[in-house]
Amino acid sequence: MIRDSFALSSSLWANIALAGLSILAFVYMGRNLSSSRAKLIWVSVLLVPLVSISSYSSLISGITVAMLENPLSGEAVLSPWGRYLTWTFSTPAILAALGLLAGTDFTKLFTAITMDIGMCVTGLAAAFTTSSVLIRWVFFGISTAFFLVVVYVLLAEWSEDAARADTSEIFDSLRNLTVVLWFGYPVLWALGSDGLMILEPALTSWGYSGLDILAKYVFAFLLLRWVANNENVVASNPSILGGD
Amino acid sequence: MIRDSFALSSSLWANIALAGLSILAFVYMGRNLSSSRAKLIWVSVLLVPLVSISSYSSLISGITVAMLENPLSGEAVLSPWGRYLTWTFSTPAILAALGLLAGTDFTKLFTAITMDIGMCVTGLAAAFTTSSVLIRWVFFGISTAFFLVVVYVLLAEWSEDAARADTSEIFDSLRNLTVVLWFGYPVLWALGSDGLMILEPALTSWGYSGLDILAKYVFAFLLLRWVANNENVVASNPSILGGD
Amino acid sequence: MIRDSFALSSSLWANIALAGLSILAFVYMGRNLSSSRAKLIWVSVLLVPLVSISSYSSLISGITVAMLENPLSGEAVLSPWGRYLTWTFSTPAILAALGLLAGTDFTKLFTAITMDIGMCVTGLAAAFTTSSVLIRWVFFGISTAFFLVVVYVLLAEWSEDAARADTSEIFDSLRNLTVVLWFGYPVLWALGSDGLMILEPALTSWGYSGLDILAKYVFAFLLLRWVANNENVVASNPSILGGD
Repeated sequence: MIRDSFALSSSLWANIALAGLSILAFVYMGRNLSSSRAKLIWVSVLLVPLVSISSYSSLISGITVAMLENPLSGEAVLSPWGRYLTWTFSTPAILAALGLLAGTDFTKLFTAITMDIGMCVTGLAAAFTTSSVLIRWVFFGISTAFFLVVVYVLLAEWSEDAARADTSEIFDSLRNLTVVLWFGYPVLWALGSDGLMILEPALTSWGYSGLDILAKYVFAFLLLRWVANNENVVASNPSILGGD
Repeated sequence: MIRDSFALSSSLWANIALAGLSILAFVYMGRNLSSSRAKLIWVSVLLVPLVSISSYSSLISGITVAMLENPLSGEAVLSPWGRYLTWTFSTPAILAALGLLAGTDFTKLFTAITMDIGMCVTGLAAAFTTSSVLIRWVFFGISTAFFLVVVYVLLAEWSEDAARADTSEIFDSLRNLTVVLWFGYPVLWALGSDGLMILEPALTSWGYSGLDILAKYVFAFLLLRWVANNENVVASNPSILGGD
Repeated sequence: MIRDSFALSSSLWANIALAGLSILAFVYMGRNLSSSRAKLIWVSVLLVPLVSISSYSSLISGITVAMLENPLSGEAVLSPWGRYLTWTFSTPAILAALGLLAGTDFTKLFTAITMDIGMCVTGLAAAFTTSSVLIRWVFFGISTAFFLVVVYVLLAEWSEDAARADTSEIFDSLRNLTVVLWFGYPVLWALGSDGLMILEPALTSWGYSGLDILAKYVFAFLLLRWVANNENVVASNPSILGGD
């Protein structure tokens, strides 16, 4: 079904290829890290393409895709619900890397990650809601509320922490990149095949794949390059975990 | 299907409204907290109504409800299996808040939370078992065994920890509330539409909703009110996590 | 369906009985532990048979088993996909116990556990892929890659850590047992009913059950016996978590 549509499947294969290349590049970039803290950031960042390659393989295999009825039109459209599922695993890794970079404390990291998981899970619930347009948008509202908490932590709390940890230079760029790109996802959802159906499934899929490329691989590349060159700054960060 | 039954759907809408109000009230109550430890309790408590509002929205949308055969009668009854799923996320937050209040160590918190998750997941498995009455009750037995471990940790271990942390006053009340109310759930399961079928689905649903209101919102309100008024006691607790 | 096949169901019941006995034995063996660190290892080890008994009950009840088409032959074979799901919970507990025994740091434990979860989840995805032989083996490849990272951490990193923590004696035996037995799983998958179909479902199931007995119960017994007799060594380990 998916393989019949070239526009759709090419958006998935492109990401598998990129995720594979990213994994190789990121492993290479982190080869010289020695401090435990810098390595933890490295592993968190590596999880992003690792989850992605598994996610996109699942989409292509068809196990995390379904024809779900959009209650707006009553028509069944191809819904790649596996995306929302795998974001539940990849976005916390992104936030963990950012939080460690900012040298934040456990409470703020816990807040950002639990709210992020809430955002992804309610987004998944929205995609599966075929019985009512109203409840679909209720889920969209809840998910967006979770997202705004994440944005607040990024903009207000972690910016201050990063200033104290002397990582503002890179943190601020990555934070802006993340906040701007992450706002693209709810907009795409609202306009796309799971929302108002203004965009077609293939275009929606390309939109998500494009955002993923920027928000995941480019983000991770910039973060890792900085960590590789500034390991000493990260290694002397205030510690979230006491034991190392 | 659910919306056809007024008695059933009203038990769900009531909880959505209450969860929404609780979230607003809890955010307001926690506005002045400043220590990292008190804030962690506050975020844990906030997760409870946040998970609840998502959970009840899913039940109303119909995505986490199914007509499952109760092997006792061979009839299909409406099983709100999403409840067991979302308890997997909300009950650990309750235990985390209680454990932090008692100033317990990582081992005991880890034990309570993993056993609690085991309890919820095997409860979920029981609801899905349609092939055999025996295996359904085997799951009920395993789930209850997990529950008794949680009760043991609460009554024996954390009570001592709370005495050392000078939080016995509030911990003991909340512990009694939690233990008494949580025993209501397996009793309701056994008597209700997933167990012996003595109670009808709508009555079972109201029972769970009622228990949820007491065990979640009233519990959380009492806990947060105390933390807001006694932040200094919590802030000087022995630390589970080293880094803050 | 499963209960019709004696060879298949006996492989499951045997493990339920063993898991039950193991739980009783392990609780008894850990009764005298007092240090927080030794207890944490004990609870982690106890999770293994607790997850197992839930897992095998689910397999017998039929809720985590399905007739899935193996795209190699186009025939539907009985796939016990619940195994891959529950390994997601039991194998991290094994690694946590080993890592704590080796006194490793948070970064390495995090790496081992996330890669292990990746291994299990992609194994689950492989079992569900019925549309294409190629993608099934792509998942097998990804899963194996995750596995090799786990093996690397066990062989290279934790062996050194264990030497520093004075637990090499027991760690090295358990590490060898784990690495050798865990290699059996992908081999069995490749030859068995989910892979090349050289082995029948019942034989595959007995193979997995046999490996589980050695890699889980025998492993856990050896580990707990050593910890019970050498609690002082474990208690003085370098600490992963700061607060106790």
